[in-house]
Amino acid sequence: MAIFCKRKGFAYASGEIYGGLAGLFDYGHLGVLLKRNFEDLWRDFFLGLDDNFAEIESSEIMPEKVFVASGHLKNFNDFASKCKKGHIERADHLLEKNLKKRFEGLTSEQLFEKIKENKILCSVCGSQIESVEITNMMFPLQLGFGNNAKAFLRPETAQSPYVNFKIQSEVMRKKLPLGLALIGKAYRNELSPRNFLLRQRAFTQAELQIFFNPAKISEHEKFEEVKDYFLNVVLSGERDKGIQKIKCINLLNKIPKFYIYYMAKVQQFYFKVLGFPENKFRFYQLNEHEKAFYNKYHFDMEADLDAVGWTEIGGVHYRTDHDLKGHQEISGENLSFFDEESKEKFIPHVLELSFGVDRNFYSILNFAYFYDEKRQNIVLRLHPNLAPVKVAVFPIVKREELEKISEEIFYDLKKDFNAVYDRSGSIGRRYARNDEIGTLFCITIDEDSLKKKEVTVRIRDNAEQVRIKIKDLRESLGKAINDGEDMSKLGKIVNTRKK
Amino acid sequence: MAIFCKRKGFAYASGEIYGGLAGLFDYGHLGVLLKRNFEDLWRDFFLGLDDNFAEIESSEIMPEKVFVASGHLKNFNDFASKCKKGHIERADHLLEKNLKKRFEGLTSEQLFEKIKENKILCSVCGSQIESVEITNMMFPLQLGFGNNAKAFLRPETAQSPYVNFKIQSEVMRKKLPLGLALIGKAYRNELSPRNFLLRQRAFTQAELQIFFNPAKISEHEKFEEVKDYFLNVVLSGERDKGIQKIKCINLLNKIPKFYIYYMAKVQQFYFKVLGFPENKFRFYQLNEHEKAFYNKYHFDMEADLDAVGWTEIGGVHYRTDHDLKGHQEISGENLSFFDEESKEKFIPHVLELSFGVDRNFYSILNFAYFYDEKRQNIVLRLHPNLAPVKVAVFPIVKREELEKISEEIFYDLKKDFNAVYDRSGSIGRRYARNDEIGTLFCITIDEDSLKKKEVTVRIRDNAEQVRIKIKDLRESLGKAINDGEDMSKLGKIVNTRKK
Repeated sequence: MAIFCKRKGFAYASGEIYGGLAGLFDYGHLGVLLKRNFEDLWRDFFLGLDDNFAEIESSEIMPEKVFVASGHLKNFNDFASKCKKGHIERADHLLEKNLKKRFEGLTSEQLFEKIKENKILCSVCGSQIESVEITNMMFPLQLGFGNNAKAFLRPETAQSPYVNFKIQSEVMRKKLPLGLALIGKAYRNELSPRNFLLRQRAFTQAELQIFFNPAKISEHEKFEEVKDYFLNVVLSGERDKGIQKIKCINLLNKIPKFYIYYMAKVQQFYFKVLGFPENKFRFYQLNEHEKAFYNKYHFDMEADLDAVGWTEIGGVHYRTDHDLKGHQEISGENLSFFDEESKEKFIPHVLELSFGVDRNFYSILNFAYFYDEKRQNIVLRLHPNLAPVKVAVFPIVKREELEKISEEIFYDLKKDFNAVYDRSGSIGRRYARNDEIGTLFCITIDEDSLKKKEVTVRIRDNAEQVRIKIKDLRESLGKAINDGEDMSKLGKIVNTRKK
Repeated sequence: MAIFCKRKGFAYASGEIYGGLAGLFDYGHLGVLLKRNFEDLWRDFFLGLDDNFAEIESSEIMPEKVFVASGHLKNFNDFASKCKKGHIERADHLLEKNLKKRFEGLTSEQLFEKIKENKILCSVCGSQIESVEITNMMFPLQLGFGNNAKAFLRPETAQSPYVNFKIQSEVMRKKLPLGLALIGKAYRNELSPRNFLLRQRAFTQAELQIFFNPAKISEHEKFEEVKDYFLNVVLSGERDKGIQKIKCINLLNKIPKFYIYYMAKVQQFYFKVLGFPENKFRFYQLNEHEKAFYNKYHFDMEADLDAVGWTEIGGVHYRTDHDLKGHQEISGENLSFFDEESKEKFIPHVLELSFGVDRNFYSILNFAYFYDEKRQNIVLRLHPNLAPVKVAVFPIVKREELEKISEEIFYDLKKDFNAVYDRSGSIGRRYARNDEIGTLFCITIDEDSLKKKEVTVRIRDNAEQVRIKIKDLRESLGKAINDGEDMSKLGKIVNTRKK
C-alpha cells in the first residue's frame, strides 16, 4: 500500500529527500483530493444530522492547564523499556510480541516485572532490559522567551471543542443537543510509529462532540428512522459470538437510545456514503478494563484491513461530563448549562464521534485497491463520491481538429467535475493510468466525434464502452456520478475493444 | 474588530476559559464558514490558472536539516532587548516606537548601540536596557526519546512544496511551469504577538509555489489577457509618487512578464472574487535593503485597514533557485530538472504567491463592517461569494401552518445555499441579527404566503423588500447569489416597512 501510494503520489514519507522522519507523512496531489473528498463528505453528513451542529477551528497549541484538566499531563503515557545498550522500545509492545497476548492497564513496575519474569531481551540487540520508564506522549512547547507560558501540541482534537463549549453555546443561542465538529491535526510523540498512515506522530482527526442533557440519554427524536437498521457489533460480554448483526431496537436493553442512533448514522456513513464492504466494518465494544476510564460506553469503529486485520479507525465514546467538569475545576469558569425548556441546570454530557482521517484514508484505498487479472493492471474501485478524478478526456490521436474539440469538452466538463486532459501515450496506456487512480470515466474523442457529434465513454469498473452524444455528455455524467445511475444504460453500448 | 468577532463568534482568543494564550486564536462557527469560503475561492481561482497546478498537504513538523538548507536556523531571528528587571521586548520595535522610524537589517550589536546612543529605556518599567539577544523564532521539537531526531514546527509553509518538488514533478509527469499550492499552518515564536489576527504565533498560509524555467521569465502565454489591466503599485524607486495605477504592459521595462502576469491575477482575485475596494489594495515593492536576501523581486500585497493603516496581507516573491539549491546541497539529492522540450537541464526558479489567511480574513471583515445609521445596527456587507450564511428563513409568527411551509422552504434552499432558520424574536430583531453576520437575504413567510404562494425577500444591502413566488425562489436566489443579478429586479418591490 505504501509503495502504491508513493508511486501514484497519494501519500509518502514527509521530507523524503532528507530520508523522512518516522511517523510523519505528506499527501500529494491525488492524496489531497481524496482526503478532502472524505472530509467534505464527513462534514456534509454529520453536520447535516442536526441544525444545531456546527464546525469550529482551533489552535493546535494549547495551554498546560488544559491537559491538567483533561488528565493528559498525568495519564497520557507510553512505557519505554530501555536495554543495556540504550535501545528504546514500547514495553507493552515488547511483551505482546514475545508472549502473543495483550498487555493493557499495567504500571511501569508491573511491566518491568513481567519482562524480568519472562526473561525477555531487547529485540534490537538481544541484551538485557534495564528499566521501564514512563514517557509522556505530548510535545511540549515554550511560548515566548524567559518566564513565558508552557504549552503543548494537543494530543487529540477533542479538548478544543470542550474548551470552546462555553462561548459557542452562547453564540449559538443556548440549545441542546449542541454539536461542535472539528477537523484538525493532533500530535503524539509515539515511541514506535509504524504501519504507514496507521500510527503516526501527526495525524488528522475528524470529530463531532455532541453536548446533551444526560436526563435525555434515552431519547432521540429521529430514532424511528433507524430502529430496524442492523448494526454490525461485537459486544464486550459476547465476544465468542463474533460479529452480530443486531437491529437497533434490539440493542436498547444494553445501550441508550441516543447513543445507538449515532452508531447507526456512523455505520450508514460507511456503507452508503463511502461504500465500505458490509462485512469489513464493525463496532467493537471495549470492556471495563480496556476502555478509557472516563468513557461509560466505548465502541471502536473497526475496519478489516488486508495487511493488519481488524483495525481501529474511529470510535463512539460516551465521555459523560468528565471533560467539562475537569475544565470547570481547573479554569474556575462555570461550565454548567441552564436549559430553558426544562428549567434545569447541569453540566452537559458528551457523546463523541471520533474518526482518524488518515486511517480512514488508508482503509478507503485498501478496499478500493484491486488487481484486475484480465486488464493486467490495478483498478482503484473508489466510490464515485470519493474518486479524486471523475473524468479523463483523450483525443484519440494528436491532431489539431481532435484536440480542439477535446479541449472544449474538457473545459465544459471541468465546470461540474474534477477532470483531467491527457493526450500522450496509447489509449490503452491512458486507460491503465486512469484505472490506477480510480478515474470513473474515460472519454475518447475520435474521427467519428467530428462527424456524428458523439464520443466514447469507457466505464472504469467493467471496461464497457458506450457512445454518447456530445450535447448529452455533461448531463449523463452528472446522472452517473451524482445520482448513481448506470452509465451503460445512458448510451448505446459498443463492442469492447482490446483493452 | 476583536470585540465584534468575539461577540458574533467569528474568532476569539484560544483557550479563553483559561485566559487565552498570547498570539493564538480560535475560529468559531461563522469564522470557519467565512475562512473556508476564502480558502475555497482561493483554491478555485489560483489552481484554475493552469492545469499543471496542484495542491499538496504536508507535515508541519519538519527535520532540522530543512531549516539548515533554507537558512531559517541561522537567520530567522528576532532581537530581544532585556531590561534590568527582566522585561523582554523586540529591540527593533522598541526603537521604532521611540524614534518613529523603521529599523531593518541591523545586527544585535547595532541595535544595542542605537538603544544606548538614544538613551531608550524599557517601555514596561522604565529601567535601563541591559542586552539585546538573538532569539530564533522557530519552535523546536524532540521526536521520540533518547537520541532521536530534532525537528521544528515549520515557520512558513513554503519549504514543504520545495521539499516535495522532486517527487511531485515525477508523479505529475515532468512539465514546467509546475505549481504546488498548500493551505496550512505555520508557527513562529513571536516575541510580541499583537493586533488580534494580524500577528499570531500560529497562522494559516495559502501559498502557491510556481516552479519555472528561468530562461522563460520574460514569457507568459496568457499575458495578452492582462496587458491593458491597471495595477495599483508603489514602486521602490518612486515611493514619493505614492500609489500609481500602471498598465501591465507599461511595467515590462521594470518587471519580467511572467511575474507581472501573476501580479495581475492576484489583484483580480482581490477585486473581482473578494470584492475589495479598489483604493484599499496595493502592491508595495521592497527595495534592496528591505527585501529578503533570496528574493530578486519582492512586492508585498497590502490592504489599508482602519485600525492600523496599510498592512502586509501577502506577497509576490521571486525566490530564484535559492531554496531548491539549498535543499540540493544539504540533502545531497539532485533537484535539477530536465526539460524535454528545450533539452536543457537546470534548477527551476520559483515564483511564490503567498497569502496570510488570517490577515485576509481580518481585512475582509474590515472592509465589510459598516454601521448603518438608519438601521442603527451593524451591516456586514460581505461579497456574496464570502458571506457565511446566504439566506435566513423566518415564519412571521409562531403558527403551525406557517412553520410547516417555512421549514419546507428552508430545507429546499439548504440544498443549494448555506441557510439558517430562525423563528424567535421580532422580524426587526431577526433582520438585525442577520445583518450583523452578513446574511444576504432574509425570507419572511406570512399569511399571504399561504394564499398567494409568495414570500418577502429582504435584501441586506439596501433593506429593500421584494415579493417572489415560492416556486421561483430557489432559482431567483441562485441568480442573485451566484450570478450577481440584482434581486430588486427579480421580484416586485413592496413598500419598505419599518425596519
